[in-house]
Amino acid sequence: MELRALTFDTYGTLVDWRGTILDELRAFGHARGLDLDWEAFLSEWKSCYRPGMDKVNAGEWPWTTIDTIYRRRLDALLPIYRITDVAPHEVEQLNQVWWRLRPWPDSVAGLTRLRRRYIITPLSNASFAGMVHLGRSAALPWDCIITAENARRYKPAPEAYRTAIELLGLEPGEVMMVAAHNYDLAAARSHGMRTAFVPRPTEYGPAQTTDLAPESAWDVVAKDMEDLARQLGT
Amino acid sequence: MELRALTFDTYGTLVDWRGTILDELRAFGHARGLDLDWEAFLSEWKSCYRPGMDKVNAGEWPWTTIDTIYRRRLDALLPIYRITDVAPHEVEQLNQVWWRLRPWPDSVAGLTRLRRRYIITPLSNASFAGMVHLGRSAALPWDCIITAENARRYKPAPEAYRTAIELLGLEPGEVMMVAAHNYDLAAARSHGMRTAFVPRPTEYGPAQTTDLAPESAWDVVAKDMEDLARQLGT
Repeated sequence: MELRALTFDTYGTLVDWRGTILDELRAFGHARGLDLDWEAFLSEWKSCYRPGMDKVNAGEWPWTTIDTIYRRRLDALLPIYRITDVAPHEVEQLNQVWWRLRPWPDSVAGLTRLRRRYIITPLSNASFAGMVHLGRSAALPWDCIITAENARRYKPAPEAYRTAIELLGLEPGEVMMVAAHNYDLAAARSHGMRTAFVPRPTEYGPAQTTDLAPESAWDVVAKDMEDLARQLGT
Repeated sequence: MELRALTFDTYGTLVDWRGTILDELRAFGHARGLDLDWEAFLSEWKSCYRPGMDKVNAGEWPWTTIDTIYRRRLDALLPIYRITDVAPHEVEQLNQVWWRLRPWPDSVAGLTRLRRRYIITPLSNASFAGMVHLGRSAALPWDCIITAENARRYKPAPEAYRTAIELLGLEPGEVMMVAAHNYDLAAARSHGMRTAFVPRPTEYGPAQTTDLAPESAWDVVAKDMEDLARQLGT
């Protein structure tokens, strides 16, 4: 069965969310004369990610975009950190930092090469709109946008992968999931997708301990997106 | 309210389905020594479009892509026209002509200009995969792909427009529907979307009698996509 399409995890796999957001938070703090531990702030902000998505997947919450999950957490965190007098449009602007994350240096070049032969799409837990905006700001040369929002279930729920495969009109074995996270690839493989692991050992900063190495015999292990393009013959 | 995104009808509005398919059918016939009335053949093939979609919208059929609707009709038409000995992969290749239609001469240039300022997406009754392939083959510079398949209801059903607006994360008044068909714009307007009419007076051939002029006071009437880009300040 021929490989036709690649689905990409995005946060961490293609873009450096931590580096970008720390830079924005520090600039935000600098402009307001705030001297805070922004790494701790970001860590607390990001910590709403999995629990919020799990509530949606469990049916405890109706469909809720990751933008809304982050916004609720940000609204709660600002007073905890005694950050006051932030206008609603400034909070929204800050929350939308997830829409303008920097790609890793190899991402755009690798995707551009891969697109010559394969259909390329995100398969991200981002909101659909967030992924559209990120695609524009980071110049990711997508053929289309597919996110958890198309299935209204977050990865690793089966619906997220199945919806992507069905929208692409392909068999699972014609699609390869590309991710820096072993859990994502394990879920993709369970649905018959091919798998490519591209480690991002500094996604969570210099002291990262997780996802440094493949935890299963993934179909491809590549050091970055250009290496993936090379290994897939593009 | 600021305009943020443009949703485009595609068949007829951006691509010349009739001209492309007649060329392919004639080449197909020439290679097989068939002398048929290909305009009649195409007319009969295309005639399955609205009835098939209506059956889906009425719940008589489960979700069925337009590719499948066209394929069923093609399978039925070939023996009627006494076209025999066509291998299944050749029938599929012929059916996929809908994935490689030629854009009108102004389409790519107009979209490229519009994309500088606005999010641009199809909102087509095509299958999602079909629109991905058409985007690649016709080099349409989409930010994302949205089709009836995302709603599992065909235009002009309300779900098709509402799904697009929701996926874009926008208010209806921030989105403009662009189409060569008055019915499509009337439906879009009923949901609060803005409207742009771009007539394609030869979509159905030189004797076309429908959609030659705006049938309502649409927000914009443009003579082609470059004119639309100009009128929208891009």
